Order: sequence, then C-alpha cells, then structure tokens
Amino acid sequence: MQRIFFNEVVTRDGFQIEPEFVPTDTKVELVNALSLCGYAKIEVTSFTSAKSIPMLRDAEEVMGRIQRVPGVEYTVLVPNVRGAERAMESKADEFNLVMSTSETHNLANLRMPRENSFAALKDVVAMAAGAVPINVSLSACFGCPMEGVVPQEEVIAWADRFATLGVRGLTICDTTGMAYPSQVSRLCEALQTRFPGLQLTLHFHNTRGMGLANVLAAARQGVDRFDGSLGGLGGCPYAPGASGNICSEDAIHMLEAEGYQTGMELAALLPIARQLPEIVGHQVPGQVAKAGRILDLHPEPSFLLDVRSKFA
Amino acid sequence: MQRIFFNEVVTRDGFQIEPEFVPTDTKVELVNALSLCGYAKIEVTSFTSAKSIPMLRDAEEVMGRIQRVPGVEYTVLVPNVRGAERAMESKADEFNLVMSTSETHNLANLRMPRENSFAALKDVVAMAAGAVPINVSLSACFGCPMEGVVPQEEVIAWADRFATLGVRGLTICDTTGMAYPSQVSRLCEALQTRFPGLQLTLHFHNTRGMGLANVLAAARQGVDRFDGSLGGLGGCPYAPGASGNICSEDAIHMLEAEGYQTGMELAALLPIARQLPEIVGHQVPGQVAKAGRILDLHPEPSFLLDVRSKFA
Repeated sequence: MQRIFFNEVVTRDGFQIEPEFVPTDTKVELVNALSLCGYAKIEVTSFTSAKSIPMLRDAEEVMGRIQRVPGVEYTVLVPNVRGAERAMESKADEFNLVMSTSETHNLANLRMPRENSFAALKDVVAMAAGAVPINVSLSACFGCPMEGVVPQEEVIAWADRFATLGVRGLTICDTTGMAYPSQVSRLCEALQTRFPGLQLTLHFHNTRGMGLANVLAAARQGVDRFDGSLGGLGGCPYAPGASGNICSEDAIHMLEAEGYQTGMELAALLPIARQLPEIVGHQVPGQVAKAGRILDLHPEPSFLLDVRSKFA
Repeated sequence: MQRIFFNEVVTRDGFQIEPEFVPTDTKVELVNALSLCGYAKIEVTSFTSAKSIPMLRDAEEVMGRIQRVPGVEYTVLVPNVRGAERAMESKADEFNLVMSTSETHNLANLRMPRENSFAALKDVVAMAAGAVPINVSLSACFGCPMEGVVPQEEVIAWADRFATLGVRGLTICDTTGMAYPSQVSRLCEALQTRFPGLQLTLHFHNTRGMGLANVLAAARQGVDRFDGSLGGLGGCPYAPGASGNICSEDAIHMLEAEGYQTGMELAALLPIARQLPEIVGHQVPGQVAKAGRILDLHPEPSFLLDVRSKFA
C-alpha cells in the first residue's frame, strides 16, 4: 500500500484570496484542529508584507499561538530575506519559496522577471542554509494563463537550478488548473527520474474540473506528496467563479478508496470542513463534506415500509 | 485515436430535479442548439406521468417540436408500456428503460421490487421489438446509498437478463456518485468481456468529486460512450448541495486534452452551457464554462508594461 503525505494549505493559499479578514483566533483554532487529522505538513501563513496580503498580516501571532503537534511540519511562505528573518523568528519548520516557470506569470504575480525572483530566493536559501529546510513551489508548471504551454524542459531547468542550491523539496504547481492527467504523468515521471533525492509535492487546482483526475495520475506515477485546501477553498484570479485548489478531503477520500494509505482521519476532518462556509461566509466547492463518504449510508425512507407491504 | 460518443441528458436528468418549470420553448431551443454540437445522442425527455415529474409534462410537445439533426439519436426515458406507447407515437429513436441493481434503491426510487420492474420493462422490450432499439440504464451499479456495496456479480446478473431479452445497449449508472476509479476499471473490464456486442455507456455523478477521474478510468478501459449533463446540472436527493451528473463540457474538454476524439464542438457548446444559470435560475457546477478551455489564453494585465520597463 503506497503511503501518501498530505499538506494542508487552506489557511494560507485558501484564505489569501478571501475578501473578508478571518480573525486570528479562528485561524489558530483551525490550524489546531487540522493538526490532529493526520497531515504531514500544514502551510500556516505567509511572511509577505501586510500591505500586499492583508489577510495574512497576523502571521507572527498565528505562528506564535498555534499548538504544534509532533510529527506535523508547520511550513510558511517566504517571499524574500526580510520574510525569511520573520519566519526564522517564528520558528517555522520549513520555508516555502515561490516563483513561476513562466516569465509572463512571474511578472504578473511577483512583479519582477524570473531571474530577479531567482536571485532573491537564492539569498533566502543562503540565509536559511542548514538551519531550516527549504521547499520551492514552482508556479504555472503545466501552463501559463497568458503564455499558454510551458515546456517540460523549462520546468526541469528551473528545478535544476534550485536542486543545485540544495533545497529539500520542490512543489510542482498547476497554479491555474491547466494540467490534464497524461501531461501530469509525463512531467512526474521526468521529475522523479531526474531528482530522486528531492521531496516532490504536486499542487493542483480544480479550475477545469480535472483536479482529482490529476491527483490520481500523479499518485499512480508514484508521487506521494500533495497540497490540498480544505473545502477546495482558494480561487483563480483568471477565472472568476471557478474552483481553486483541489479540495483536501475530496482528494483524501478518493485516495483512500483507491487503496492508498494517507494517514488521515477523514472522520475528524469532515466536521472541520463543514465549518468553512461559516468561517468565510460563502459556500465552498468541496463535495465529500456535503455528500458524506461513500460508506456513510443513508437510512431507508419511511415509505419503504408501505411499498414493501404492498408487494409482500 | 479512440473515438468517444457523448450522450447529453440535461433536458431529462438535469432538469428533472429543478423546482421551477422550464418553459417548453426553452427546452426545444436548448435541444436544437445541442443538436449542432456533435452529440451522438440526446436524451430529450421522459414519458413518465405528468403527476410524478411535472417538469417533463410537455414530453410530447418537446419531441414534436425539436428539429432533428441527421446522425443524432433522440432517446427518451420510458418507464412502462403506457410510456412506450407515447414514446412510439413521438417517434423517439431509442427507448431508455431504468431499474436499479439494488433492491432498496429500486423500492425507494421506483416504488416496487426489482422483479416487478424487470417484468414491466420486459413488456416494453416485447412491445418495441424490432421497431425501436432499447437501452437499459441500470442504477446504483457502484453502490447503493442505503445498502452500500452492490456486488459486481449482481450488476452482471441484471445485465445478463436484459442482454438475453435482446436489448441494444446498457448504461451502467453511478446514480449517487459512489464509484471510484479502480472500481470503474474492474466493472468495465468485466462488462466488456461478457457483453462484447452490447453498446456500453457509463453514467457518472460527481457527488464526491470523482466524476472525471471515473470517466477517464472507463475511457482508458476502452469504454466509448458516456452520459453527461450540460453544466453538471442534476442533483442527488441523498446529498443536498452536492453536485449531480458529471458536467458534459468538462468531461469532453478533459477527453479532448487526453487525445480522445469526441466529435464535439466545444466552441459551440460552451456558450450554450453559459446560458444555463439563467435558464434554471441558479449557478451550476460546471467549471470549463467559467474558466474557459486550457488553451483560451488571457491577455496580459496592462501593468506588465510598467513592470517590464522597470527591469529593462
């Protein structure tokens, strides 16, 4: 039975796009509850400037107040050396750095050319050297909403540059939901062959409905780490109304049905997912929290007694 | 390149659960528009009693007014001999009969034991003999929301009984979204081996988010016919708020990306899907109609000029 490790990103990637500030208390309670569900990692927050992402302006306080559960890694997004200093002080277990494999997407999302991003992130890696493990999330690996196709060689070239710097892991992100399953299989195989020593995580969005099909394609290729967002929270600035990140509980539910061992307690996770609409003030895309697990059976309707006696 | 044949069920299975009557004109216009998109079949309506499904009380009128396009089969749901007579008069190209492989689900959904359903449908097959091809949709083939697991042998046993009656096709329905991909692969393989001469269609729901992963599992097993509902319209009485049928355009979009030849014109289909929220008065689950196809690129935001010049 293949073991799958799950990384929950709802309080960072999920909340980041929400218009209404989620109170610090709620974030802390949510991370604490999620910590008891079997996640390998939780991406708690981001040490970006409060101005650029007001939702995560309480990064220090959240990191300071959560109750850390042994065995769970608490990772944070770090955009630059200043953010790394704050993250270091907050005793994050991992720094997650981000840049895009598409020049246009990097210019749009990070407001600088890829080379400038790489230089800034290289400084963070140097600063953290030895003290904190580094993960690099590469955006738009399966396509850029403005450029279109991102060649596989481009993804591998950027992965190579970070591998050379000695990072521990790479997250391959389908930032705007452009990946399709056979493309996922091909890229995963290429990355596994080239980087056998790196922790490889796949990050999918469900923008075009293929999120779980892509998860399965990667898992069957042997990928054992996935990002997911509780309730499927998150979104895509290029597709108003469309789904964002894949839904953690839906992905976990499918992987368990397929016989993978996720280490997750769905029975504990689903009630937490069901609190999300109240927390964010709107419905969320996740399905299993609404429908229950495959094996959560429904009672027979009472009229069946009459139907049965009619035909007895 | 494997050819996939698509069957659109939105005006029957999709509308059936909607609370507000969709005007006959709208139904006719919708079927006419869908007829130009490349579908192999369209399930137009149901010849059930107007009392049991008021939404489809205009079955005769809709069938009489649609403009039939050569090459498209116009199929209708037929519950019994009385319905078959009406369907025959309406010159339906195919009768689609329904019963459940789960005793409890059949009692709940059709208000009679499976043996009684079978006897009634056998009469319909006899009546249609030679004149109209028959398809049988078997419900709850991947699980019953009340009984749980439906053994594969049970599905095959019912399929056998209908095959013996000389039906042309079988639709294997995951009525409440309980199927998972490896289960789909196993059942499809068993059915293909046993019924090589039958037209085999798979009907999935996205109730637990696995709809498209299940489509892909079946297609990779060689299944070449799928039901889908425009916009993912439809629902599940056992899971309020959860998705219903798989979304036709999302499934077609994925299959095209995977290299299957669907014969569908997505460029014509997406604008029709985008009219659905107005027709039914609420948002629908489909994603591609909101996000666009993978290759529908977005323009660069205007601020990129400034970003570029800053780093020039």
